Amino acid sequence: MLAGDRVALAKLMTRVENGTGDVAGIMARIYSRIGRAEKLGVTGPPGAGKSTLVDRLVGKLRGRRERVGVVAIDPSSPFSGGAVLGDRIRMQSHATDPGVFIRSLSTRGRRGGLARATREITHLLDAFGKDRIVIETVGVGQTELDIMELAQTVIVVLVPEAGDTVQVMKAGLLEIAHIFVVNKADREGAARMKTELQTMVQLRPNPGWEIPVLLTEAQADRGIDELVAAIEAHRAHRAAHADERAGEAHREREFLDVLDGELRARLERRIGDESGMLARVRRGEVDPYSATRELLADREALRRLLEDA
Amino acid sequence: MLAGDRVALAKLMTRVENGTGDVAGIMARIYSRIGRAEKLGVTGPPGAGKSTLVDRLVGKLRGRRERVGVVAIDPSSPFSGGAVLGDRIRMQSHATDPGVFIRSLSTRGRRGGLARATREITHLLDAFGKDRIVIETVGVGQTELDIMELAQTVIVVLVPEAGDTVQVMKAGLLEIAHIFVVNKADREGAARMKTELQTMVQLRPNPGWEIPVLLTEAQADRGIDELVAAIEAHRAHRAAHADERAGEAHREREFLDVLDGELRARLERRIGDESGMLARVRRGEVDPYSATRELLADREALRRLLEDA
Repeated sequence: MLAGDRVALAKLMTRVENGTGDVAGIMARIYSRIGRAEKLGVTGPPGAGKSTLVDRLVGKLRGRRERVGVVAIDPSSPFSGGAVLGDRIRMQSHATDPGVFIRSLSTRGRRGGLARATREITHLLDAFGKDRIVIETVGVGQTELDIMELAQTVIVVLVPEAGDTVQVMKAGLLEIAHIFVVNKADREGAARMKTELQTMVQLRPNPGWEIPVLLTEAQADRGIDELVAAIEAHRAHRAAHADERAGEAHREREFLDVLDGELRARLERRIGDESGMLARVRRGEVDPYSATRELLADREALRRLLEDA
Repeated sequence: MLAGDRVALAKLMTRVENGTGDVAGIMARIYSRIGRAEKLGVTGPPGAGKSTLVDRLVGKLRGRRERVGVVAIDPSSPFSGGAVLGDRIRMQSHATDPGVFIRSLSTRGRRGGLARATREITHLLDAFGKDRIVIETVGVGQTELDIMELAQTVIVVLVPEAGDTVQVMKAGLLEIAHIFVVNKADREGAARMKTELQTMVQLRPNPGWEIPVLLTEAQADRGIDELVAAIEAHRAHRAAHADERAGEAHREREFLDVLDGELRARLERRIGDESGMLARVRRGEVDPYSATRELLADREALRRLLEDA
């Protein structure tokens, strides 16, 4: 993978996604090679045209000779048995470009591990040598906000129909946005929405970075140059206001997440062996909280569950 | 709290929300009293009018003499320092009704613990004697989908402007809906959206329960009786098709979540004491994955971190 083999990269991604093999070991080996890629988050409600926007953006970045990775987080569909592929098909304009690597990450049954898997896939793309990694999420929920913490620059994409700006606040999007994009700007209400967003942005206490509000029509390739310029302006702003404490907090959180994830994986592997406790919980003979207390008070049981075999 | 003291209930909720005190101990004590309440989930994109709909629904349920609890999950706002309260204010029509207990749960900095806190607040309301608990989430993301697993009947609320049904699939909403509501049905496109949703619903493999698609105008109190009837029909369907294995899987997941949560809490409390490892991670001297491997291989360190003091 470190020699530039795309097939090896794809295989490692599958391991990370499935949590098979020694993922922590892989990450430990590549960690010294990461930190060079710029990470760009793109989020917003379903139907905002994020995938088309990302497609156009990738085109512009490729025009600048950047090597680009895309991680697209797709909810699973009961029909396809996997990701909803409609939008990904549009990205096929880059499918034959060796400078672009696109990975869809399914959310099916993931329950909390999604942010970790996304981070690790991003690490792989970073170590592989990508200059820019675009992380695209469908949806506007808590997990999506967490995932956007991985990105250095976050673009929130809205459409004029998305409702008033109170909805933006309710979804927690104002806290994470570095750039607002009103896409499908040829539709009615785009100018009004831009004005509302600008007012909201100006009302923030301690603004620091001035959040731009841009109009785009991704389908027609309009406004993308301005978006690239805003992304670069934010990069320059970050460089001028480097925050070492944010980096420390970020590493601490990653450490706790990884450690907790490994412990949880051990729990799930071994809990079935543990003196019938799981069976009793499943049958409803003991409640989950009493079972937890009992197990945590039993040093030997805890040791069997969590220590290396 | 078990004697019906609302102040005691509110205090316990605050403990659960903050994770202070022996939450597992509280849950173990009340667990034998839960399981009676019907849990109703209400989700959908920001701006769909969920809060107004819940307000009307609570009115109807109170008309049937049901005791009702509401858990509303609000993203935090940087302005208010807490939940966005606009919608909650509307719920004040029930503020003086002792048969209704409303709790907003802020999402600020929660990172994964939101589903657990919601479940525990629901347990408290259940043990308190509520007949019906309404769980309302803002947003359409992975965490919101996880939270809806707590509910026995899930209502997905959309508005005609929400875009086509492909967006519903992309957000993963089809998999969790037991009832679709097109709210603000006086607006253009409501009938078309209803037809699209009905077509989508009919295309599901192995349908079992036939998902109804209802039109409501919550502001004008229209369509709410039909919604209550659909909720009751789904309850009857569930009773006729009880699935014991689903209950077992649910209890197993709760057990693992609780156990993992307790271990993570111990980690976060004690990791700072552990031989400077955290400080080294924070300074970037060791990567999070190597630090995890080192710690997991050190039985004594693991014991200090995870065993009872």
